Order: sequence, then C-alpha cells, then structure tokens
Amino acid sequence: MLVVMEVKATDQMVARVCVLIESMGLTAHPIPGAQRTVVGVTGNKSKIDADKVLAQEGVKEIIHVTSPYRLVSRECRPEDTVIDIGGLRIGDRNCVVIAGPCAVESRDQAMAVAEHVAKAGVRVFRGGAFKPRTSPYSFQGLGEEGLTILGEIRKEFGLLVATEALDTESLDKVAEYADIIQIGARNMQNFSLLKKAGKLKKPVLLKRGMSATLEEFLMAAEYILAEGNPDVILCERGVRISADSARTTLDLSAIPFVKQTSHLPIIADPSHGTGRRDFVIPLSRASVAVGADGLLVEVHHDPANALSDGAQALTLEMFSGLMEQIKTIAKVVGRTC
Amino acid sequence: MLVVMEVKATDQMVARVCVLIESMGLTAHPIPGAQRTVVGVTGNKSKIDADKVLAQEGVKEIIHVTSPYRLVSRECRPEDTVIDIGGLRIGDRNCVVIAGPCAVESRDQAMAVAEHVAKAGVRVFRGGAFKPRTSPYSFQGLGEEGLTILGEIRKEFGLLVATEALDTESLDKVAEYADIIQIGARNMQNFSLLKKAGKLKKPVLLKRGMSATLEEFLMAAEYILAEGNPDVILCERGVRISADSARTTLDLSAIPFVKQTSHLPIIADPSHGTGRRDFVIPLSRASVAVGADGLLVEVHHDPANALSDGAQALTLEMFSGLMEQIKTIAKVVGRTC
Amino acid sequence: MLVVMEVKATDQMVARVCVLIESMGLTAHPIPGAQRTVVGVTGNKSKIDADKVLAQEGVKEIIHVTSPYRLVSRECRPEDTVIDIGGLRIGDRNCVVIAGPCAVESRDQAMAVAEHVAKAGVRVFRGGAFKPRTSPYSFQGLGEEGLTILGEIRKEFGLLVATEALDTESLDKVAEYADIIQIGARNMQNFSLLKKAGKLKKPVLLKRGMSATLEEFLMAAEYILAEGNPDVILCERGVRISADSARTTLDLSAIPFVKQTSHLPIIADPSHGTGRRDFVIPLSRASVAVGADGLLVEVHHDPANALSDGAQALTLEMFSGLMEQIKTIAKVVGRTC
Amino acid sequence: MLVVMEVKATDQMVARVCVLIESMGLTAHPIPGAQRTVVGVTGNKSKIDADKVLAQEGVKEIIHVTSPYRLVSRECRPEDTVIDIGGLRIGDRNCVVIAGPCAVESRDQAMAVAEHVAKAGVRVFRGGAFKPRTSPYSFQGLGEEGLTILGEIRKEFGLLVATEALDTESLDKVAEYADIIQIGARNMQNFSLLKKAGKLKKPVLLKRGMSATLEEFLMAAEYILAEGNPDVILCERGVRISADSARTTLDLSAIPFVKQTSHLPIIADPSHGTGRRDFVIPLSRASVAVGADGLLVEVHHDPANALSDGAQALTLEMFSGLMEQIKTIAKVVGRTC
Repeated sequence: MLVVMEVKATDQMVARVCVLIESMGLTAHPIPGAQRTVVGVTGNKSKIDADKVLAQEGVKEIIHVTSPYRLVSRECRPEDTVIDIGGLRIGDRNCVVIAGPCAVESRDQAMAVAEHVAKAGVRVFRGGAFKPRTSPYSFQGLGEEGLTILGEIRKEFGLLVATEALDTESLDKVAEYADIIQIGARNMQNFSLLKKAGKLKKPVLLKRGMSATLEEFLMAAEYILAEGNPDVILCERGVRISADSARTTLDLSAIPFVKQTSHLPIIADPSHGTGRRDFVIPLSRASVAVGADGLLVEVHHDPANALSDGAQALTLEMFSGLMEQIKTIAKVVGRTC
Repeated sequence: MLVVMEVKATDQMVARVCVLIESMGLTAHPIPGAQRTVVGVTGNKSKIDADKVLAQEGVKEIIHVTSPYRLVSRECRPEDTVIDIGGLRIGDRNCVVIAGPCAVESRDQAMAVAEHVAKAGVRVFRGGAFKPRTSPYSFQGLGEEGLTILGEIRKEFGLLVATEALDTESLDKVAEYADIIQIGARNMQNFSLLKKAGKLKKPVLLKRGMSATLEEFLMAAEYILAEGNPDVILCERGVRISADSARTTLDLSAIPFVKQTSHLPIIADPSHGTGRRDFVIPLSRASVAVGADGLLVEVHHDPANALSDGAQALTLEMFSGLMEQIKTIAKVVGRTC
Repeated sequence: MLVVMEVKATDQMVARVCVLIESMGLTAHPIPGAQRTVVGVTGNKSKIDADKVLAQEGVKEIIHVTSPYRLVSRECRPEDTVIDIGGLRIGDRNCVVIAGPCAVESRDQAMAVAEHVAKAGVRVFRGGAFKPRTSPYSFQGLGEEGLTILGEIRKEFGLLVATEALDTESLDKVAEYADIIQIGARNMQNFSLLKKAGKLKKPVLLKRGMSATLEEFLMAAEYILAEGNPDVILCERGVRISADSARTTLDLSAIPFVKQTSHLPIIADPSHGTGRRDFVIPLSRASVAVGADGLLVEVHHDPANALSDGAQALTLEMFSGLMEQIKTIAKVVGRTC
Repeated sequence: MLVVMEVKATDQMVARVCVLIESMGLTAHPIPGAQRTVVGVTGNKSKIDADKVLAQEGVKEIIHVTSPYRLVSRECRPEDTVIDIGGLRIGDRNCVVIAGPCAVESRDQAMAVAEHVAKAGVRVFRGGAFKPRTSPYSFQGLGEEGLTILGEIRKEFGLLVATEALDTESLDKVAEYADIIQIGARNMQNFSLLKKAGKLKKPVLLKRGMSATLEEFLMAAEYILAEGNPDVILCERGVRISADSARTTLDLSAIPFVKQTSHLPIIADPSHGTGRRDFVIPLSRASVAVGADGLLVEVHHDPANALSDGAQALTLEMFSGLMEQIKTIAKVVGRTC
C-alpha cells in the first residue's frame, strides 16, 4: 500500500501517518519527493485499516499495490479451479454451453426447449423460476412450480439445471432443485445473499453487475469463497456505456482479465449482453474466441410468444447453427465444446 | 406505445402485429411512412405485453410514449407527497437535513455525534448498524447492538432515526428501531427487499443505484408503493462516470427530473456522492439550490478514527458551518431549513 | 418522425404543431391516447426541422423513427462497400490486417517492423508521423520526416501505408504519402477535418470516439460521404466505461450493428481498445470471430524502447503467432486472412 | 512516480527497471513487499519517459503521484488567475453570466436577444457563427456573416462577445471579432487548435469533452498555456452517463475539483449540460452555489423558432428571473453577480 501525502502536508503530518502505520504492526517507508511525500507500507496487509489512514490530516490518497482479493486470486491459488458437476468439468479445457429459455413459462415450453438443446449436445439447462423484473407489473416467474418443472427436466433428459435465486428466503428451495445456483447482476452486491450462498455445497454462477468494476466483481465472489464455498463460476453479461447499439455492451476484455487475476472459471452471456437475437451468434463466437470457459445462451422454441425477453432468445434452428460455429472456434483456442 | 417496424417488414408482418395488438384489447393505428411503418397503439396500456410485441417478426423496436410509472407518477397524483414523521414533514416546504456517522461504531461515538447534530438543529439522525461493504474483510457494522444504540439516541435526544436494512431477514428488526428505513444503492433492485419494505408502515429512504437510470429508480419505488406503502423518500447519491474527480458524480439534474415526473420527495447525499469531505459542503449547497427536499450528510466527531468512510465525513465544526450556509440558500428556493 | 406531446398539452397546442408540420410540406397524423397525444409525421423527412418542432409549447419529445443516416445507411446502398486499394479489397470476404508501430520513431525502427510484418503476410503498414497526445510534453511524432520514412517503406516493401492526419493543415501532406488516411478518435467530431477529408480521393480510416454513440459515429462518416468521398473504413477502438480492466473496453457489438446498419467496412483496433499487450491477442481473435473486416494492430520490434504506447505493442513473435490464430477463425466466419 | 512490478517479476527485472530510471537522471527507491516490489522514483519528473518504463518486462503499472499538470496547476501558481477583459474580471469574486442564443441566426434575432440580456445586466454576449453539428445536414451557422453581426452587437450595446472557433482556419477570423474565443467540447482534444489558440493574445473559453476526465480537461488547457496564452476559462458542460434524465449530466463536482487543483477560472453551462429549458434554472442556481466563477446560458427571444437547440434556450422572461435568483445565491458564496 502507498500513502500519498498532499503537497502541503507538513513533516509532522507525515510522521503521524508513519506512527499510525507502525501501530498497526506494519512498516512505513517514507519517500520524500520534489512535490510531495509518499509513504510505502510493507508487512501483512490484512491488518491495515485503509479508511483510517485515508482519514488522517494531510493524506491525499491511498494506492493499493497489493490487490484486495485473497481467496479468489491466482496468487493465492495458481492452478485453475475446475468445478466437477456429475462429471461435467467447468473451467477445464472444454467450453460449456448452458442453454434454455429466459423463464420457465410452462411444462410444455420448458420440455420443448430442453429436448432440443439436449439433442444439440447441451449438458446444462437454464430457465428462471424466480425472475427479477424492472417493473412490478411484469411476469415474475412461476416460482416453486417452475422449480418442479426444472426437476422434471433434470430427470427426463439427464440435464443439469441452472436457475436463479432471487433472495435469501428462496435460496434453500432453489438449491434443492438446481445443480448451479445463479445470482443475478442486480444482486451482485446483495451481500446477505452472497454470504448465504457461500454456506451452500453447490456451485454458484455469479453475474457481474451492469456497472460493476472487475474488482467489485471479484470481491463479490470473495464473499462466497470466504464463507467456505469454493465453486464459483463468474459470468460477464454486459456493462452500461452511453452507446446505442444494444442495451448493454459485452465487456469481453473482462475474460482475459479474470483468467489472469483469478483461478475461477468465467463464462459469457451474450443474450443479456446484447439484448438482440441477431447479435447473440456473433458475440457468442467472440466470447469463445476470447477464451471464455463457456456460454449462457437463451433459447426458445417460440420466441414470438415468450413471456420475457423474447427479443433476445435464439430460435432452436439458430441455436443448432451456433453450436456448429463455436465448435470450430473452440479448437483454435485449444478447447473442446 | 409505438411499434416501429423494420424497413424490410412486409405488409403481412404489419398486419400480424396489428392483429396481436387488437387481440390484447387495444387499438392499432398503422402509419405507413416513406421508409418504414409505425404502428401507434392506444387503449389501456396496462394490458399490453410489450415483450411479446417486440418478439414478432419484422418489429424493430417498441417506443413507450406513456411512462411505465403508475403509482409514483405525478400524473397519478399531481400534488406532492408529504411524509409526516412525528411532526417532521418531508417533501413540504422545509429542507430536511439527516445527519450522523456512516456507521454506529460505539455508544460513545454515536452519542457524541448525535448531541452535536441535535444542537445544530438536526431532527433526524443517521447511522448504519448493518453496513454493505465491497470487501468481506471490512467492518460490517455492529448489527443489533448498533440498533440498540440508535434506540437510546432516539430517547435521549428526541431525534428521529434513519438506518439501513440490508436484507429481508433483518428488515423487521430494523423497522422496530428506525423511523426511516434506508435501502442502499446496491439493493435498489433487490426486488424481494423492496416488496417486503412495501408491506411495512414505515417511511422508506430509497437510494438510487450507481448506474441506475431514473426510470429504473422510479420503478424501484413503484415496487414499494405497489405493495401498499406510499411513504418513499428518494435519494440521489451519485452515479458512475469515467471522470476522475471523485468516486461518483452527484447527478443533480435527477432532482428536477424527479420533482417533475413524480410526487415523491427526493433528497441528495453529497457525502457518498463525492466521497471527499472537502467537496461535501459545496455540493450540499448545490443540492439545496437545485431544489432537493433535504440532505443526507455524514458527520463524525473524529473522522481520523472512523471505522468506515472517514474521508468523506464532515467534522462537527464543518457541519455547523454547512447548516448556516444552506439556510440562506433554502430561502432563495422558497424553503426553510 | 413522431412528436410526443406532454400530458398537459391542450388541443390547441396539438393543432399548432400539426399546422407547423404541414407548413413544412409534410403530413401530420395525430393519435390521441389515454394519457397524451402523439403526432406521426410522414413525407420527405429531409425537409423537417426537428429542433423547431421540439421547441413548440406542449411538445415533450421527438422520436426519430427514420434513422438520420443517408449515404452511409444500408437502406441507401444495400450491397457492401468494397474499397480497392491497389488490388487489396477492404470490406470483401478477406480480413485485412493493418500492422505497425504506434509511431514512426526512426528509419531503423520503422524498417525493422515493416520488414517483419510484410513477411508475416501483412499488406498495409501503419505508423504515426503526427501523434495526438494528452500531454503537450509527450513525444508528438516526427512529423514530415515520419512521412518520408513511410514513403520509403512503401517503396522498399511494396506495403500500403496508413497514417493519421491530425488537422486540416497537414491533411494534404499526409494524403501525399498515405494510401489510407486515419482520423483519430479525438477528432471523430472535428467536422472541419471530416469535410476536408471528404474532398480527397483517398480512403479514410475513421475511428470511433471514446464515448461516441454508434449514431454519432455513423453521422461522422456521413460528413465524409456527403462531401463526395465514398471510401470510409470505420474502426472500433474501445469505449469508456467505469470498469477497471483496461483503459477502454472494445465494444464488439458495434461490429454487427454497423454491418447491419451501414454498407461501410468496419475493422477493430484491439491495441488501443485494451491498452495491454497481453489482451491484444484474445481480443483480436474475438474481433475476427464477431465479423470485423479487419484489424489494426500495434507491433514493435523492441516494445521496451518504444517512444509511445510500448505497453500495448505486440512483439514480432507475438504478432506472427496472432496471424496464425486468426487465419483459422477467419475461416469459421467465411473469410480469408 | 511509482513503478509497480508484477508479482512474478524477478529481482533481475527490478534491477533493470532501477538502472533505466537512474539512466534518466532520477533516483530509484525499490520497496520489496510481501507480494510484489514497488519502485519509488524521485527527482525531476519532467525527464521521465513513463511509457518506456511501462514497457519493461515485469512492470505491472505506473502510478503517477505527482500530477501531470504544470502551468495549469495551483502548485505552480497558488493564486487565482483573474482574466481582465476591458474591466470585466473573470475568476475574481464576481460571478460572470455569459448569455445569448445558441447560434446567431440573423441580425434581428441577435439584436433582440442582445438588447434584453444587456438590460438584465449581462456583460458578455454569446452566439455561434460557426456551429458544430452531429449531422452534416443541420444548420451550420452563418459563418463570417455571423461574426459581422457579433461585431455590430459589440459596438451597439457595449457588450463583450464570446463565440466559437471550430478549426484552425477560421481561428484568426474569429479572434478578430471575439473578446473570448470558445473551443467546444468536441474539440477539447483537437490539439492543433489548442496549440494555435495558445499563440493568440485573447482569452480562450475551453469546454470539457463529454467523456473527458478532469485530468484530460486540465491537460487540454495545459496545451494552451504551454504556447504562451495564460488566459483560459474552463467550462463544465455535462458528461455522459447511462441515465436518462437529460442528454448529459452536469458534473458539478468538477467545479470544486478544478478550483482546488488549478488556478484557472471555471464556469458552468447548464444549457448544454441539461438540454432542457426547464432544468436550466435549477442547475444554474446549483452551479453558482457550488462555486462556479460564472455561467454560460442560452437565451432566445423566440425559442419556438430557433434554428438550433431551441428546446434548451430560456425565454427572455425566464432569463430575467434567473438573474434575480442567482444574485442572492452568489452572496451566500461571497460573490457578486
């Protein structure tokens, strides 16, 4: 950590900061410059209270040289985390496609989509039973009935199931039915939910908030690991910019950043990341090409009658075409699909 | 609502969209243009399923002419909502200052700040018992002990108390002690929490998410009103931009926008909105000048030893100075402070 | 065009707007809704003065249904623009790689890089003679000397040359030496420069501004086409978000958006788009996978001694590796490289 | 400056970085930490080539402790710059209102507005002769004819005149007529224009780019000062966020930031900053309250017939009302208006 003093900070202020740092069991290294003094701090960083240092008189800013990540960082664990769910290995050299409708709307709809994606080679089915919606008047999902349908799909097609938990109340219920528990972008900093998910023994798929920095994203995952659950799959789903091409912009540079900084697997969600069916296929190809460990894709057998996000769902035909395309690209980056 | 067809949409596609709209009990008004056709939709908009229309073949986009707000909109309720809490009227012609430390750290600390702000004329004390923190290793608040201290402050100084509820589990407990229940920026779209807060009989202070559009902000308030709680105080606390002056940028144009669009009161939080003590006073003045119904300000008797956000807390002296300045500005905009 | 009236707009105000629209030679179609009236406008949109309509009493907003693009739009020209420069076809089924150092630093440096990229199969060399720099104290390029070196490279290696014109003064000089004239992101709305470039007979490579919407980007190209120069190559080079992974985020959804909306070719610049050498290769792969017509890549024979942007330049070895990888991906999207 | 090494950087890499730093005539202070080494750099920073250091093997990032500003910084010049234009002092204790139409549309229009604002106490008239427009088909200004009209206004009403120079070609012509030369947001990093403006003997009003960081903004001003022109008036005019309240968000925290970091005066432009007439007055009040040295406001005698930006222009009556309101607020911050 580096403590940057203000230009007008007196020697006394610098001295007080050094005393404070040493009182925390750390070592202070003042470096007086032409304009200002910087104090380098070495020692066990976990002991430091940066807020307190920042609040001292004469301190301009604190620069964190050591990253704030612990358990999620590659420095803590150099090898990739591979999550094995019934033989499916996420984070390994394969590229996992998780596909299904935005929401489970009915038994018939879910079955129709599941049957198709299973045939196309998909191993994990997605579908929301509890839906986060901007408006209280929009379809909020089938709730527990949706979970039951997902349970049937798991049995019928031998598919693994990923579905979202919206709150701490429904988390246990969701965990009963799901193989992968999704935490959505709007809940990325719902710390109570993260902590409770950290106590489960099931993999968690954590989506990046729409304006979250990558540091905040990894720190949200840290909450889950810190509670004892090492199986977190990160998911880039688009960030807000001021451009007009789509609802959000898929930040594909997040993928190599996370692969470098953390040992956790990261997948991409081009459906939410673009919001437009005709952009999902090119961005899916790009996600695999950039090195994602997998994709989360919305597919619907009848998008024109979907109850939510129909405009971004692929038709079954489009989805089959996508699977062909990404297989070849996966090979270029040394993966199978 | 307006349905914009693609340039290449056929007459049949337009006809199908019109049939769908009419089947929802609405009226379709196709307007063929030189390039493309637009279909105007009139009738009771609450019946429309926009997602479904958008998913039809040949539809380029949906334009909402009628705003999605119902209960929060000024069109629904032309007069200002005034929330009366024990005689203190929020949203009326006064400008309410809610002040106190970021977190309740100890009985002594909270009492010291409370005594000072009460003397300076403040009627509502703020202080977090449960703290949302980016890192799981940061101070997470005193929890229930903090609530007990807030209870003492309420008795001792006759102050009203505002404090944050982090999740649905602790909401009832918080509601027991608080006069105003705060829902933080990171939870602005925690819909389960919003719904549960909507069932309470206590005023809710809802903070805008750091990258939330104003429409999303008002729709989050709509969740609370839709459940039966009309007493929502909105709070602008800064949005993310790519500038470097501060952690976030206080979006003061949100204040006149909300006053025009909604009947709900809106206050500003220049402490989180700037993150820097030396910017809090000028931005507080600006917030009052722009027409905010109040301020949420962090004050600490000893910022250098604060356990969280000490860098943005005003000292007691600075706070007293601020109160003087805003009184005069409040007069210019026809308010008392 | 649609004119959305305010809820409180009177019938008289609506009538006045209709009269104004008709006076412009257009047809007004008022659609009275439950809450408000919308006026559809049909006819030759080029005659309309939207600012004037917007300024009328009772008008809430103008919604443009017809896009503002004319010459750049695919509606104007359905087939792809293919730019032929000495036999090299940009915008066709090949994927063009433009490579070279950020700046021409010396004859030796430029020659060393040029020799290598030519061997790797590159047909267009890039290198800045005039450099836009945030600080007036940074290296500003060799100027005309740099142009002369580029001229030698063109002769020596048979490479085409792309280089930036910073202002209207130097534009003619640059055009003398360059086969492709680059206009940088900071100049995307330097309308005087765009107009003058529109009078040239040479292809223009136009970079998207770092916070420009795609509409603004295409309208900037429209300035060039409107002056008579049809040969514009668009370039996505990253947009600003609040994330921390890199200096900017390459907005790859811009590629399918532009391919759909316009007939102009669009390439990607992963070097500026990421700012980090180790991210350039994965993002280059992603750019090709998403359907870009080419890449603009910074390469340096000795990045550690580069005078500008050394941190984002690929070494010669890395560049050769990149060329191999993208060849295979290009095939998947039906291109050659 | 601080050089942060990668975690995996070897001792040799650190040593090489230190040698490089020393070779530039600076002193290197390596601080080995638990995770990584940081090298502090002291000495005359103007000698350093940060790009070169960043490009060394093993270097993760460069952290600039010393700000990059020289001439614009308050450290260079502690007292406020006060620009005296014919007795009007900008940057002093008064709050200067610059008012007039977006564009000079005709002699009659300009005269009508000028007469009114002069009566309301304004000393500087604004009006564009050359207009930067997103579309090549929008009104581009009257050009030189507009300048002539501005010249008449100056004589007739004794008003000073501020108008925009769009490019280096027209700069001299503009300088002939204008007392204050405006450089617009889109040209903030048009370095050729900045350099040429730096050679003039007239004050320059430099607007912040819509997504420019404050560092980039001040560095753009540095270009002007570095060429010998010390008279720069900065202007905050709104930044892009993803919110929907208005076209841009006026970033009022930029004002105290600039006042603290630089000695240059800074004013606010609530007309472009909000884009909506009904928001201009509240945001003008806020701008004065936050400590701006002045305002740039668009006023039109007949906004419904304005040729550009009529929707954001105040009517004459609204403008007179505004002048009253800000006088009182100016007093609170110790200024006259």
